[in-house]
Amino acid sequence: MINVTIYNEFVHETTHESVRAIYPQGIHGTIKAFLEKDSAIGKIRCATLADHREALSQEVLDDTDVLVWWGHMAHDKVDDAVVAKVIRRVLDGMGFIVLHSGHASKPFQRLLGTDTPLLRWREAGEKVRLWNIAKNHPITQGLGESWVIPHDETYGEPFGIPNPDELIFISWFQGGEVFRSGATWRRGEGKIFYFQNGHETFPIYHQKEVQLVITNAVKWANPCQRHCAVDRGKGNDAPFEKYELEDGSFTPVTRH
Amino acid sequence: MINVTIYNEFVHETTHESVRAIYPQGIHGTIKAFLEKDSAIGKIRCATLADHREALSQEVLDDTDVLVWWGHMAHDKVDDAVVAKVIRRVLDGMGFIVLHSGHASKPFQRLLGTDTPLLRWREAGEKVRLWNIAKNHPITQGLGESWVIPHDETYGEPFGIPNPDELIFISWFQGGEVFRSGATWRRGEGKIFYFQNGHETFPIYHQKEVQLVITNAVKWANPCQRHCAVDRGKGNDAPFEKYELEDGSFTPVTRH
Amino acid sequence: MINVTIYNEFVHETTHESVRAIYPQGIHGTIKAFLEKDSAIGKIRCATLADHREALSQEVLDDTDVLVWWGHMAHDKVDDAVVAKVIRRVLDGMGFIVLHSGHASKPFQRLLGTDTPLLRWREAGEKVRLWNIAKNHPITQGLGESWVIPHDETYGEPFGIPNPDELIFISWFQGGEVFRSGATWRRGEGKIFYFQNGHETFPIYHQKEVQLVITNAVKWANPCQRHCAVDRGKGNDAPFEKYELEDGSFTPVTRH
Amino acid sequence: MINVTIYNEFVHETTHESVRAIYPQGIHGTIKAFLEKDSAIGKIRCATLADHREALSQEVLDDTDVLVWWGHMAHDKVDDAVVAKVIRRVLDGMGFIVLHSGHASKPFQRLLGTDTPLLRWREAGEKVRLWNIAKNHPITQGLGESWVIPHDETYGEPFGIPNPDELIFISWFQGGEVFRSGATWRRGEGKIFYFQNGHETFPIYHQKEVQLVITNAVKWANPCQRHCAVDRGKGNDAPFEKYELEDGSFTPVTRH
Repeated sequence: MINVTIYNEFVHETTHESVRAIYPQGIHGTIKAFLEKDSAIGKIRCATLADHREALSQEVLDDTDVLVWWGHMAHDKVDDAVVAKVIRRVLDGMGFIVLHSGHASKPFQRLLGTDTPLLRWREAGEKVRLWNIAKNHPITQGLGESWVIPHDETYGEPFGIPNPDELIFISWFQGGEVFRSGATWRRGEGKIFYFQNGHETFPIYHQKEVQLVITNAVKWANPCQRHCAVDRGKGNDAPFEKYELEDGSFTPVTRH
Repeated sequence: MINVTIYNEFVHETTHESVRAIYPQGIHGTIKAFLEKDSAIGKIRCATLADHREALSQEVLDDTDVLVWWGHMAHDKVDDAVVAKVIRRVLDGMGFIVLHSGHASKPFQRLLGTDTPLLRWREAGEKVRLWNIAKNHPITQGLGESWVIPHDETYGEPFGIPNPDELIFISWFQGGEVFRSGATWRRGEGKIFYFQNGHETFPIYHQKEVQLVITNAVKWANPCQRHCAVDRGKGNDAPFEKYELEDGSFTPVTRH
Repeated sequence: MINVTIYNEFVHETTHESVRAIYPQGIHGTIKAFLEKDSAIGKIRCATLADHREALSQEVLDDTDVLVWWGHMAHDKVDDAVVAKVIRRVLDGMGFIVLHSGHASKPFQRLLGTDTPLLRWREAGEKVRLWNIAKNHPITQGLGESWVIPHDETYGEPFGIPNPDELIFISWFQGGEVFRSGATWRRGEGKIFYFQNGHETFPIYHQKEVQLVITNAVKWANPCQRHCAVDRGKGNDAPFEKYELEDGSFTPVTRH
Repeated sequence: MINVTIYNEFVHETTHESVRAIYPQGIHGTIKAFLEKDSAIGKIRCATLADHREALSQEVLDDTDVLVWWGHMAHDKVDDAVVAKVIRRVLDGMGFIVLHSGHASKPFQRLLGTDTPLLRWREAGEKVRLWNIAKNHPITQGLGESWVIPHDETYGEPFGIPNPDELIFISWFQGGEVFRSGATWRRGEGKIFYFQNGHETFPIYHQKEVQLVITNAVKWANPCQRHCAVDRGKGNDAPFEKYELEDGSFTPVTRH
């Protein structure tokens, strides 16, 4: 069973009526509701900006297999100490699913080595066609060769990300842009998936293809072991092989 | 002409007689001296921990094509504001050559999304054989299929780096370890090269193969343009293509 | 249940008493025996050089999820028509596990775009230490940070492979060589894993770590769907979007 | 000086008046004419299907730094012996620029491990917008963030290529498709660049941006050394390091 924690900023839903109308339980509530239907998924916790210091405590993170992240207007307000814990957990194997404006969140930018701004955008409600370019990838199972999101914010290349380990989706936008809208990276022992779609003013997370992508991604990002930290702390332990230093001028610290 | 700036912590040389004996002008002095011999290299500036706030000012960084970085015991003391400037400049195209313990420096870890510690090590003066696995790469020109550094600190896998864009060297160590000792990544528009060798207690930077690696790497990392920042600031500009929103329920912000 | 087919050349075992002593049922027999113990693995078929035209028929390949390949001295004798079928099946999703000298087999070289010879070697029975550099990868589950094969043929870099998608193992050899001994690639919809160890004169496939690697790899390479062929045959179908050609001088073949 | 050889099938131009009108000297003639203007480029030879056995002889290939390839309707007729020589030369360092339908040529498919068909297409003269996603790459120097080809054949994802080492362009098509229209790979010591545009019925190679892409690509693909073949033929040479076999049961072939 995969333990999932969902971080949602939860600011737009409380300040904009139009967003609340789409996500009355918050974006995290909608995501939680569809993830709950999958039998592989165990405990689902939620965290918001308001409570993230406690809701993303070390104890919670240590019990989390995959963290889902949605943030947009309050990236700055996320506590650096929490960010450091999230990063360490990803490096130790926790999966990390980053949605939409999460490309500008601290943990994503810190793990990918990027900065802001790193893409072009347009809030115009354009049609998006997502092309599935990894038919035999766990994240795309159940999806066809391409599919449409009727209206979303446009994101455009160049997207200042490191070359993805796997490119999953490329999107076509009505206004002339293209975007690498689904991509994976490994950092340390953790698997990261970025998925572009999900502007808060559109009912993206109610669309079944999007729900499938996120559910599949959670299962894909689940680590083989919850804590995969490599034990690297042992500097200066004994060498594995016997040898003689050739000129005797240096004394190895330890020897068999 | 390539403008190079060399950051060297310059602490070991001032506190350890044995290190000063090897690098009387500091590690940066030795690196500067051999880089100066290459006709493609222009202005060479040096910075140390003591003066790095001024010596790595925005003005200097803006005039730098490639930054070389050596640090070991005082990574923490490097100013975060300087680190942020370095990162921004790499993302905008500045080359970045990271030597030895620089894997634990703030700018390298921030750009690669890593954390400390991320490798195994042993200070035993073991013999290292570096295998050149990229014969037709600019960084390896003039080097043979393999070559030896008689004594260096041992670094061992697993090395917690993201999968390199190009793997240049793999090292064999007498004690049984292997290490990806030369590797490249792109971040934003900048090229990064990490080279493992160079423990301060050995005369590594006096060895001609090492000098060749670093000189070649500086030339390889030189950006096509000194400032390659993508202009991403223009959100909500007009779409490139004309189109009609299908159901009329969303009003695009801008239109032709 | 994963259907596995094992191709083993089966020439050394029939011509060299010393090899037969190690693998009385052939290398394929030994591999089959340990794979059978895993409950995720279904039907296991075997093919040898002598019968490979029938044993690797289209029907068999179509019913195979993962193909394991061991060959050494008779790569040339493998039928090109069979090779073409194997390649097509990998591109359509079949997993492909290539062992030891299989790096010189026709299907591996054809899928990776390599040629022969592409590595250094020495038959000296040297000790090998394999370093696990992907602790949270399905292929390494159950293995520690490093492990030893007491005696095997030495393979040395440079190994003329394309940059792996994932580097799993790097080996240290007693004689001074290093080797990327475990690596993965995707080709089309299929997953490929190369594992270096397994010279026929040593009991490598009787060693439990090696058995674990191969068993894990079979499960990792199992496709999401047995046949993932992308339907690319539909040239000149209708465009997805309506548009007007700007100058009218070209007539699109099909329109909405 | 970079020696370039251009292979152009040269069948459409001789059989279709409309194509001859665009390329009266053949596509190779147009490419040769703009490459000649660059001072870094030395000898330029041309080869066509009719004379390719002689015009792509071993002697010519050995004197070629970068080979440019355009083919469409007669891939099958290219001599397998010539293909084998081309592949060997790429693995030994020769650059290889593959244009348009060259994705289905024997040397490209053999080097990338692909098969046919591997993309979607539509001959509809649609507008294409190419997005430059590698601003600091030698291939994109002089190009802006995006640019338009007014009419070309549409190619659509999924494009069955291995994950590129560097993704240079992604194209947007009027009809709803996207395509990875510029990408690089290394194979052996050689650099490969694929560029999608150039259907024979449009004057693509007369467009200045396209000419810039191809000229830049030739310079980028130029090897550090004309012949970079790794000397891998020396199996069973002496080990680099002295060691003792632990149990004496195997006798190394050679020893210091």
